[in-house]
Amino acid sequence: MTAISKSFYAVIAGVGAGTGRSVALRFAQSYPVVLLARKPESYEAIVSEIRSRGGEALGVSADTADTASVASAFETIQKELPGRKVAAAVFNVGAGFAIKPFLEVTASDLDASLASNVGGLFNFAQATLPSLLEAVPTSPHPPSLIITGATASVRGSARFGTFAAGKFAVRALGQSLAREFGPQGVHVAHVIVDGVIDIPRTKGYNVNDGKEDGKISPDAIAESYWHLHTQPRSSFTQELDLRPYVEKF
Amino acid sequence: MTAISKSFYAVIAGVGAGTGRSVALRFAQSYPVVLLARKPESYEAIVSEIRSRGGEALGVSADTADTASVASAFETIQKELPGRKVAAAVFNVGAGFAIKPFLEVTASDLDASLASNVGGLFNFAQATLPSLLEAVPTSPHPPSLIITGATASVRGSARFGTFAAGKFAVRALGQSLAREFGPQGVHVAHVIVDGVIDIPRTKGYNVNDGKEDGKISPDAIAESYWHLHTQPRSSFTQELDLRPYVEKF
Amino acid sequence: MTAISKSFYAVIAGVGAGTGRSVALRFAQSYPVVLLARKPESYEAIVSEIRSRGGEALGVSADTADTASVASAFETIQKELPGRKVAAAVFNVGAGFAIKPFLEVTASDLDASLASNVGGLFNFAQATLPSLLEAVPTSPHPPSLIITGATASVRGSARFGTFAAGKFAVRALGQSLAREFGPQGVHVAHVIVDGVIDIPRTKGYNVNDGKEDGKISPDAIAESYWHLHTQPRSSFTQELDLRPYVEKF
Amino acid sequence: MTAISKSFYAVIAGVGAGTGRSVALRFAQSYPVVLLARKPESYEAIVSEIRSRGGEALGVSADTADTASVASAFETIQKELPGRKVAAAVFNVGAGFAIKPFLEVTASDLDASLASNVGGLFNFAQATLPSLLEAVPTSPHPPSLIITGATASVRGSARFGTFAAGKFAVRALGQSLAREFGPQGVHVAHVIVDGVIDIPRTKGYNVNDGKEDGKISPDAIAESYWHLHTQPRSSFTQELDLRPYVEKF
Repeated sequence: MTAISKSFYAVIAGVGAGTGRSVALRFAQSYPVVLLARKPESYEAIVSEIRSRGGEALGVSADTADTASVASAFETIQKELPGRKVAAAVFNVGAGFAIKPFLEVTASDLDASLASNVGGLFNFAQATLPSLLEAVPTSPHPPSLIITGATASVRGSARFGTFAAGKFAVRALGQSLAREFGPQGVHVAHVIVDGVIDIPRTKGYNVNDGKEDGKISPDAIAESYWHLHTQPRSSFTQELDLRPYVEKF
Repeated sequence: MTAISKSFYAVIAGVGAGTGRSVALRFAQSYPVVLLARKPESYEAIVSEIRSRGGEALGVSADTADTASVASAFETIQKELPGRKVAAAVFNVGAGFAIKPFLEVTASDLDASLASNVGGLFNFAQATLPSLLEAVPTSPHPPSLIITGATASVRGSARFGTFAAGKFAVRALGQSLAREFGPQGVHVAHVIVDGVIDIPRTKGYNVNDGKEDGKISPDAIAESYWHLHTQPRSSFTQELDLRPYVEKF
Repeated sequence: MTAISKSFYAVIAGVGAGTGRSVALRFAQSYPVVLLARKPESYEAIVSEIRSRGGEALGVSADTADTASVASAFETIQKELPGRKVAAAVFNVGAGFAIKPFLEVTASDLDASLASNVGGLFNFAQATLPSLLEAVPTSPHPPSLIITGATASVRGSARFGTFAAGKFAVRALGQSLAREFGPQGVHVAHVIVDGVIDIPRTKGYNVNDGKEDGKISPDAIAESYWHLHTQPRSSFTQELDLRPYVEKF
Repeated sequence: MTAISKSFYAVIAGVGAGTGRSVALRFAQSYPVVLLARKPESYEAIVSEIRSRGGEALGVSADTADTASVASAFETIQKELPGRKVAAAVFNVGAGFAIKPFLEVTASDLDASLASNVGGLFNFAQATLPSLLEAVPTSPHPPSLIITGATASVRGSARFGTFAAGKFAVRALGQSLAREFGPQGVHVAHVIVDGVIDIPRTKGYNVNDGKEDGKISPDAIAESYWHLHTQPRSSFTQELDLRPYVEKF
């Protein structure tokens, strides 16, 4: 294991048993990681796992859809990791997934999708970008804001309207941030995860005819996020897709 | 002038001196038109203009961002035009245009953009789609929901993040509706208006080096909307762009 | 019928029983039309049909994939229609459609697709653009170059590689011409025809579960091309899609 | 240095002082590399450099635009590296870059762009895919075909028509190959290099106002290619972009 940074940290919003956990473990090889989730049970096991591997981890309860909750979480982080700057911020929140005929969807379904997706990214980006900018001159890799997207980020399928609205909006905001903060040295990237992720919750899903590796490995996603983070500023990727070899697209 | 329909009407959300007015005048050649705007001063002159040309028009005050306000407006319409079905619904609302460095944007800027753009489309689509579906068997052209988009519907430019979030989300919802309601006979189309529209408010704008026709004629936009409405169901356009010949793209 | 222009003509490359014929009939309501096809049997019946309706039509044999053949065809046109300028040029050629596993495709399959698609557009555009430019100051509508595309213009499906290569290349060249000649007043538009066209050859195809209007009406395509041609220069469409209401997309 | 594979090799078409050289050096850390270029002076120095670092390298003269030349090159490779399979094939050829007003471009400019770009990829893919498929069961990483694209792969700019035609066509073929061969275990990826690469030939270019790191490091490109190659089959990227932090997009 390489030395863990003493000046920077990585923060991951939206951790659970899948991508968030894998990303946390991957970035914990180089940075202390802060895990944000609404409930402690989402991050406690990961914090333990990272510590047991010799890494540093801190779990903080926060609802990224709630501006005040995010502000409070970053106050806690400042107290726990005083003087540290954000080297990498990963926005991996994705609620609001309702598949319904449009005339059965309610305005609150739409609001929930918008609040958790683009509202969450907005709050998280406002909380992390000042520190990411401060990290530019000294961080080992360009400070990075990496955003998890989905098929619905680029395709509005029938009955996915409210979910796609939230995901398209996240992509819009991510693009805009890339164009504003890229020239200042912060790498903003958006990843289109196009397939079902292989996590405990999807164990029983019959995906891609049950073919081996037909679901996306969250560790592979984490490896691609780490690659994005380590790209030098002469060669930033703004967007990439990830999907199983057998996924139709 | 062709005869005005006695069984159907067109409804246009977001009228003022520009696209909304031109669309209203164009559709009023075939249908009674209902104009929705937050304030009577936005529709009164247009209602008069249409009537003076022998058309039928009704102005109703409504804030499309507000679910209850939209419901109330459509109750009014039902009373005024009993038994009529919607042949064409045009969503032309576009507020939330704030160009600011991201760290100066507030959560309420984002909310305003989302509420007026995708929230407005959501409310308007929920209010009109049941009637558009009913109109399918008998309407002279496929019942249509036409949505005004912008450059920011497909591009998240620096400092346009909150506006692009709203516009991307509108496009997502529009695509989803096209895929759900197209097979049921309702034509949902999204138009990317890529340029400055030639309206009183933009008179002084120096656009495209002041070249003649360097701003988009709202009457031309209306003609394209009418073309979309008259496409038979064997040949629907889901998306088109409109821009001045001298616009960079 | 409106008067037929005495100063301009429309030229359509790629006519047969489908889109080309419908476009010819539609544009013949306003212009003399010149029909280009490799073999007289492809245009003779259409020429007769137009003349029987009181229009003017001229058929010329030409292989648009062959630079010399195109040059010779336009010499013939100059002799037959001396002093006339091109008001509308429609490129509707689409050969090279081979669906095969890639390892069974030959280099000559690829060459055939490239030659007929982008090679053909290249020759046709070089032959018509000088006259389209000359027509700018006086033509009733902005002189137009309209290009027929396909699903394969924006999607490289499995086993469609060589066809998609030709179609993507056509779209690339069309975009480039739009950006170069648009500011000079020539309207270059690309149309993505996404579905099976309803022509004699496709009579027996089971498309969209045999649903009524599940194939695209070539007359509807022609109407959209005419709409594109009549757009004023303040409001050009560069690209639109056309598909049956029941088509999956 | 990790051990060099004895069963596989990497082959890079289009090597010179830039991306090709960096990719060769990167892949030579794990595989013997075969370098294809039209002239020995393009690969000789790189072959020496790899050997001096303890790697294995073979240079073969070939014009990828010429089917026979590619066939002959792979016969040579079979003789020199008997029984070895292709673990990674990188198509990095990019000629045909002519920026001219369309009416000054000739048919042979178009042919040159098509032949070198999509014709070259076609020949290279046909030569390597059988071996890539054979490598699937045993190769350390999913056998990969990685294709270098450019801004012109997704944008037809004014006066770039013939170049964009070639690049769009390459992207089309790459997408099609990804969809056909991905499910068979071969990873086909396309990389949009959006900016000027920092190589000897571009030393004097004033790019991005001369800002530091305003040109793309070819070593960074190579690192992203290596990342693509090492993605497991559950998580393939089909397309990513690379650009300097200060590049407008």
